[in-house]
Amino acid sequence: MSDAHQDTADGVNADRIAKAAGDAMWADDRATQGMGMTLVSVTAGRAEITMPVREDMVNGHQICHGGFIFALADSAFAFACNSRNLVTVASGARIDFLRPAKLGDVLTAVSSAVHQGKRTGIYDSVVTNQKGTIIAQFRGNSATIGGALTHIKEEQA
Amino acid sequence: MSDAHQDTADGVNADRIAKAAGDAMWADDRATQGMGMTLVSVTAGRAEITMPVREDMVNGHQICHGGFIFALADSAFAFACNSRNLVTVASGARIDFLRPAKLGDVLTAVSSAVHQGKRTGIYDSVVTNQKGTIIAQFRGNSATIGGALTHIKEEQA
Amino acid sequence: MSDAHQDTADGVNADRIAKAAGDAMWADDRATQGMGMTLVSVTAGRAEITMPVREDMVNGHQICHGGFIFALADSAFAFACNSRNLVTVASGARIDFLRPAKLGDVLTAVSSAVHQGKRTGIYDSVVTNQKGTIIAQFRGNSATIGGALTHIKEEQA
Amino acid sequence: MSDAHQDTADGVNADRIAKAAGDAMWADDRATQGMGMTLVSVTAGRAEITMPVREDMVNGHQICHGGFIFALADSAFAFACNSRNLVTVASGARIDFLRPAKLGDVLTAVSSAVHQGKRTGIYDSVVTNQKGTIIAQFRGNSATIGGALTHIKEEQA
Repeated sequence: MSDAHQDTADGVNADRIAKAAGDAMWADDRATQGMGMTLVSVTAGRAEITMPVREDMVNGHQICHGGFIFALADSAFAFACNSRNLVTVASGARIDFLRPAKLGDVLTAVSSAVHQGKRTGIYDSVVTNQKGTIIAQFRGNSATIGGALTHIKEEQA
Repeated sequence: MSDAHQDTADGVNADRIAKAAGDAMWADDRATQGMGMTLVSVTAGRAEITMPVREDMVNGHQICHGGFIFALADSAFAFACNSRNLVTVASGARIDFLRPAKLGDVLTAVSSAVHQGKRTGIYDSVVTNQKGTIIAQFRGNSATIGGALTHIKEEQA
Repeated sequence: MSDAHQDTADGVNADRIAKAAGDAMWADDRATQGMGMTLVSVTAGRAEITMPVREDMVNGHQICHGGFIFALADSAFAFACNSRNLVTVASGARIDFLRPAKLGDVLTAVSSAVHQGKRTGIYDSVVTNQKGTIIAQFRGNSATIGGALTHIKEEQA
Repeated sequence: MSDAHQDTADGVNADRIAKAAGDAMWADDRATQGMGMTLVSVTAGRAEITMPVREDMVNGHQICHGGFIFALADSAFAFACNSRNLVTVASGARIDFLRPAKLGDVLTAVSSAVHQGKRTGIYDSVVTNQKGTIIAQFRGNSATIGGALTHIKEEQA
C-alpha cells in the first residue's frame, strides 16, 4: 500500500540521515518539548513519539483536548517527513477522532510515509494509548521546501 | 452558502442559550485556559477565540507549532458546535496551513456553522493573525451525543 | 473569510481571462461533457456548473452515486482554479455528503476561491439541488503547474 | 494499524455475509455498472473493484477526470463498508491525487477497514494502475444507518 521510497540505495544510510535530521529538529523544538513529548525513534520515512496526557491538556471531564492529540500526531508526521534531511513543512492534515484520551494516559504516535514524491508527500500517523487502543487516525500532506536541515558528516551519514 | 439553522425561532433566545452553554464549557476547560485563550464571543452557531503565540508554542525558528494553531481552531469549533446546548463532540477535522504564525503574534479563530443537521454538523474555522492575514483554514465534523451542557434558567434563556 | 485575489488590477480583465481559459478547457473536456454538465459561468476565481442526475448515475434506490456528485464539484473547482489562465491541477479534495441526490434532480455546483497563493490554492464547491437544498460541501486543494491554458488575444484580454 | 474487527467469531462466515451483501448491492447499482466497473471480490471489511479508463472519462489531454478516480475508490469503499450486511452510507471522504491516469489504463481500487465502530467507520481505498503504480489515496468516513441489505439464508451465512 505504500510507494514511499528511500532516497538512498542504502537503507542503513537513510536511517542514519533520518536520525541526524531528527536530532537537529528536536534540539530546537521548544513546543514539542514543552508538551512533554519523547522522541522514541526516527528512521527513513518513519517516526515514533510518546506523550503523557497532563492536567493542563484536559477539560473538566478529564478528556484530552483534541488539539494535543493532533499536536502529537503532527509532531510525529513532522519528524517522519523531514527524515530525508530536506526542509519539509505540513501543508495540511485530516484527523479522525475515534476514542477519547484521558488524564494520565500515555499516548504514542507512529507516523509513516504513504507516499513521498519529489516535492509533496502523504504520511499517516496512528495515535494509540498505553493499552494499544487506537485514539485517532491522522493523514498529513507535506511540502518539501528544500535545503538541508543539518550538515551530516561523512562518517555520520 | 450556509444552511445552518438556529434551533429556536427567536434568534436572541438562541444567542442567550449559546452564551450560557459557552460559559459552562469554559469554566471547566483547563486545556483551553492553559493555552492562554480568550473567549471573545459565542452566539448561535458561531464562536470567536483569541490566543497569543507564546515561547512554549514555537520551534527553534520562532514558528508556531501546527498543533497550537489546530487547537485554537478546534476550540472555536467546539464552542460553536455546542452552542445549541446539546453535548457535541468533534469526530474529525481537516486543516490547511497557509502561512506561518510567529512568536508574539495574536491569533484569532472564528468558527461558524456551514451545516447543522439533527446529529452531525460541519463548521469552518478561519485563523487570522493581528494583521488580519489568514494563517489557516479549518473544517470540522461534529457529532451531537445529546444531553444538555448546562441547565438554562427560564429568565436566562 | 476569503483572501483570494485577482491577478490583475482590473477585475473586468480578470473575468475575461477567466472566460477565455474556461472556454479553452471546456472545448477539450469529453468527460465533463459526457456527464451532461453545462458550464453556466466562469469568472475570476469562481465557476458554476449544472448537471441533471441521469439513470446511469443512480443505484437501485434511485440515489445518485457519490462519484458523480464529487465529479460535479470537482469540475466546478477545476474551472475556478484554472481561471487565471495558468495550468492548475487538483492535488486533493475533501467532500462531505449532507443529503442524497435523486434521479431527475438538477444539481448545481458553485466553486469559489478561499485562498490562492502563488502556487497552491483552496477552493470550496457547494452542491445544491433545484430547490436550493445543499447536497454536499467540497473543499479542494490546487497546485499550479505553470504555462498558459490558452493564448489570449489583446482585444480579448 | 487497523483495529477493524469482524462481527462474527467465524471469519469464513463473515466473508460469506460480505459476499451476499456485495451481490445484493451490485445487482441494483446501475451507476457502478455503467462506469464499466468489475467487482473482483468482497470479503469482511474489504472490497476490490477494477475499471478501465474509457474515452468518455478523459479530457482533451487524455487524462482521466478526477471524478471517475474518486468514483472507483468510493465504490470499493461502499462495498467494503456494507460488507457487514448493515445498510451503511458514505458521510464524507478525502482523496489525494498522486499521479494521472490515462486513456486505456485499467485501474484497481482496494478498500479496507481502518476502523469500524458500532456506527461509524473509516476505510482506506488505494487506486493503482495496471503497472501497480499508485494513482490516488482515498480515506472515507462511513455511517451505518441500520437494517440488513439482504436476507441471508442459514445455509448461505
